[in-house]
Amino acid sequence: MEVSVKLKWNKALRFNAEVADGRAVEINSAEDMGHAFTPMELFLFALAGCTAMDVVWILERQRQKVDNFEISARGIRHKEDPKYYEIADLEYKIEGKGIRKDAVERAIRLSQEKYCSVRAMINDNVNVRITYKIRDGEGQEQTFMYADHSSQEPS
Amino acid sequence: MEVSVKLKWNKALRFNAEVADGRAVEINSAEDMGHAFTPMELFLFALAGCTAMDVVWILERQRQKVDNFEISARGIRHKEDPKYYEIADLEYKIEGKGIRKDAVERAIRLSQEKYCSVRAMINDNVNVRITYKIRDGEGQEQTFMYADHSSQEPS
Repeated sequence: MEVSVKLKWNKALRFNAEVADGRAVEINSAEDMGHAFTPMELFLFALAGCTAMDVVWILERQRQKVDNFEISARGIRHKEDPKYYEIADLEYKIEGKGIRKDAVERAIRLSQEKYCSVRAMINDNVNVRITYKIRDGEGQEQTFMYADHSSQEPS
Repeated sequence: MEVSVKLKWNKALRFNAEVADGRAVEINSAEDMGHAFTPMELFLFALAGCTAMDVVWILERQRQKVDNFEISARGIRHKEDPKYYEIADLEYKIEGKGIRKDAVERAIRLSQEKYCSVRAMINDNVNVRITYKIRDGEGQEQTFMYADHSSQEPS
């Protein structure tokens, strides 16, 4: 299974990024963005998008009725080159009547450990810290820390 | 230095991905794309965009006169979950009068080994294979394999 993209230089550090069928986005450095994105923003989109899809899909398979779903991602960069993300904080926010904490925890675990392709590529190079918020219908929102058991449990 | 993004679930596996200042892109699974992107496409944009900026910038500092620059990225996915990229092929294409091969090779090396933040996060988890093409003005285009000496040389 292959994925291909092409980036064409425009000027300065601005590039037109395209997929074969013509879908396109602009990439630029942090100054003078217009509607362009930086590579590191696109990376967070990829990481968050990957696990977001997994979690929504797994929750549905667990018959959890999700009304709203959001994920926020924050990357904290290393101070010297290469300025990779030392830390990536992911916060999942799930709303729906009767959403079970254990179902959410399990969906996140399956994504982080088994399904998320972007997560698998960064592996231990980035410290991924996870919290999740559940709001059961009109009830109070509760915040939980995701417990990473990946080093204790066989996969 | 921090970067933050937020993804809001729309429906099915479709998400609106936003940066704080309102720049936004749609993320979706491979079916029914519209103008959305998959997380794995966005990942290739991030990887290619990161090194593209480095190489253009380093070539300029080496006083190479670049008229055209392109980078193609192709990811070959693992067959089972997680379907990460086992291989990422990068092909740089540089046009300009008097562009020197050693300057291009050096720019790619500095990006791959020192500057590219996305590259640093995937490290050895993805087999990154690199070629580059140089076209000197109106001359013939020549293709070169990038020689990865990273394991032999001190950084």
